[in-house]
Amino acid sequence: MSRLITLTTDFGLTDPFVGIMKGVILGIAPKTTLIDLTHHIETQNISQGAMVLASATPYFPKKTIHLAVVDPGVGTTRRPIVIETPDAYFVGPDNGLLTPAFSGKARVYELIRLKYFLKSPSNTFHGRDVFAPVAAHLANGVKPSQMGKKIDDPVRLDLPRPELKDATLHGQVIYADNFGNLTTNISDQDLKRCLTGKPPVLRIGRRTLKQFVRTYGDCPKGKAGFLINSWNAIEIFVRDDNAQQLFKTQPGAVVTLRFS
Amino acid sequence: MSRLITLTTDFGLTDPFVGIMKGVILGIAPKTTLIDLTHHIETQNISQGAMVLASATPYFPKKTIHLAVVDPGVGTTRRPIVIETPDAYFVGPDNGLLTPAFSGKARVYELIRLKYFLKSPSNTFHGRDVFAPVAAHLANGVKPSQMGKKIDDPVRLDLPRPELKDATLHGQVIYADNFGNLTTNISDQDLKRCLTGKPPVLRIGRRTLKQFVRTYGDCPKGKAGFLINSWNAIEIFVRDDNAQQLFKTQPGAVVTLRFS
Amino acid sequence: MSRLITLTTDFGLTDPFVGIMKGVILGIAPKTTLIDLTHHIETQNISQGAMVLASATPYFPKKTIHLAVVDPGVGTTRRPIVIETPDAYFVGPDNGLLTPAFSGKARVYELIRLKYFLKSPSNTFHGRDVFAPVAAHLANGVKPSQMGKKIDDPVRLDLPRPELKDATLHGQVIYADNFGNLTTNISDQDLKRCLTGKPPVLRIGRRTLKQFVRTYGDCPKGKAGFLINSWNAIEIFVRDDNAQQLFKTQPGAVVTLRFS
Repeated sequence: MSRLITLTTDFGLTDPFVGIMKGVILGIAPKTTLIDLTHHIETQNISQGAMVLASATPYFPKKTIHLAVVDPGVGTTRRPIVIETPDAYFVGPDNGLLTPAFSGKARVYELIRLKYFLKSPSNTFHGRDVFAPVAAHLANGVKPSQMGKKIDDPVRLDLPRPELKDATLHGQVIYADNFGNLTTNISDQDLKRCLTGKPPVLRIGRRTLKQFVRTYGDCPKGKAGFLINSWNAIEIFVRDDNAQQLFKTQPGAVVTLRFS
Repeated sequence: MSRLITLTTDFGLTDPFVGIMKGVILGIAPKTTLIDLTHHIETQNISQGAMVLASATPYFPKKTIHLAVVDPGVGTTRRPIVIETPDAYFVGPDNGLLTPAFSGKARVYELIRLKYFLKSPSNTFHGRDVFAPVAAHLANGVKPSQMGKKIDDPVRLDLPRPELKDATLHGQVIYADNFGNLTTNISDQDLKRCLTGKPPVLRIGRRTLKQFVRTYGDCPKGKAGFLINSWNAIEIFVRDDNAQQLFKTQPGAVVTLRFS
Repeated sequence: MSRLITLTTDFGLTDPFVGIMKGVILGIAPKTTLIDLTHHIETQNISQGAMVLASATPYFPKKTIHLAVVDPGVGTTRRPIVIETPDAYFVGPDNGLLTPAFSGKARVYELIRLKYFLKSPSNTFHGRDVFAPVAAHLANGVKPSQMGKKIDDPVRLDLPRPELKDATLHGQVIYADNFGNLTTNISDQDLKRCLTGKPPVLRIGRRTLKQFVRTYGDCPKGKAGFLINSWNAIEIFVRDDNAQQLFKTQPGAVVTLRFS
């Protein structure tokens, strides 16, 4: 059986940690295809990792195995888990990182069968010793129920939702990408519910933006605007420039949107 | 059919964008082998992307599909295209990025068949919604002519050529690599045409270099020299050090070479 | 024959050099699976490259081919070599980089058969012109003895070993990882030989650490401690923080350990 495994970590690409995990996987399941989502999650930033998984996993084929390690509690009593959904498998620590897997039906298993780990697992590198071998065995067709016991209390991480107050949507920046574009947690659905026929006005910090456009190119060069981006969310940008740097903004920054 | 697809973008590796494109490709063409050329093209630097493609693609097997996205015009009327040459396919935006594909015979198609895109393409991420699926369908054997209509006016980007004036070659730095070595647009062919029997003297900024050597090791440690590099071009270096940093030089810097 | 090739270089991921090497390999051996160990070895830091190879290669399947290029002497008389051990193959320059391959039995060959290189190899990019094609031919089943002649004087690089003096182990930091954790050259075996029943005390710079713990989580947040890490070596860390930055420490820093 040939299967796809994605990898998402905060390991970076300078150390050989990711390569080692791949060596372990291919030693157990040689026909696996491995895809990196990113290894540049900020150190121990579990919610950023969760957000990246949530945005990326819908674009992978059915039954893809998503291996994710952002794991400040490695070696402690935090549980290693595998989640089975109708669409995919998720393998990683039980700290909320895999939360996106929970929309809809999901079965969660605590990994307890040592025979599916490397021998004598270390206390500091479960990516290598626990999660990589488990993902490989999944790729080989081993069932989650063979590797663990079912649990019903996994740690859940709720991503922040926007609120509607006084005809204004109160949301926040949840992600800044490589181009400095700022994704908010206000979706096109949120927007549709509030439409008044008047043009939307967005505020972030002390700035007021009125350029609600269809595509980056509809905004004059160097000017700020907002649009519905490829995640169907409101995104703030500066045409041909870096909004994050210009606005000195970080994820968490408050964004309001109203129709006035 | 098993095929090779390379990826070149300015997306960086921090966001999951590249991984998502690979998920889309493997969902459509599961047996594809994917190779990253680089995802660190400077933001929106089309000519740097074109140069990287030109230097790398000759080293790939025949019929390799090269997918490239440096796309400031995403979502506007700039056309998505596929280019077919006797050696390879190129997929990306029609903004000059794919120019290297044009040496020799090439057929260019504007991508117009929506059935080969993801459903409801976004206005901000054609890498995912247009170019990745088209590259995957190419890998599956779909012909470019099935996916688009032939055009004969693609945007062309001419890389700068050196000039010969008063027995002196006037060129420029076109690329600075990870080691700080500076590739110029003066080729070994340009050089041969100017040989006089006298030793060549290179000027860059206020520096005059006379160490024209065969290999880095032929220059004393810490000294600057120049040689014919692996692209058959004049390259300026400092032995065991970083010429770009020491010279404070960027691509575009003027370089002259004469035989005196 | 399907085979695994790993790649380790100081090329970085901004230039297309690594992708080009992969294109060359797949042109010769299309069924090869390629895994990056890291391309962020510090420029020309041969001993760091050697350490990374030593830590990573034990986790790969038998007969894996490890291709490594940290090669300040490219184009000079330094020899290109391939090493055959009972477990793996190593391909790269003869400058000590491949030293880890020498534990136990190994046969070393100087690569002298030009037919296994690209035509007209450059003097600056043997990764592309020599090492990539040789690794690919190995993957295709060509024997090292067909590609080179046996030698018995390869350059060896000895990694520093700790010393025991006055009941104190004198070692050093040999690696700082992405998290700022500091791996020392003091192994759990070194430690066991010195056990006295008294608690160990570690000194680094002007700091004295007494928190010898099992796992990161056993140390209070923000406090420094040490443990046996996943390489079975003493590692210094700061819980949920970056010891390298806080201690302003680099590989080479002296570490002492005694039982008092």
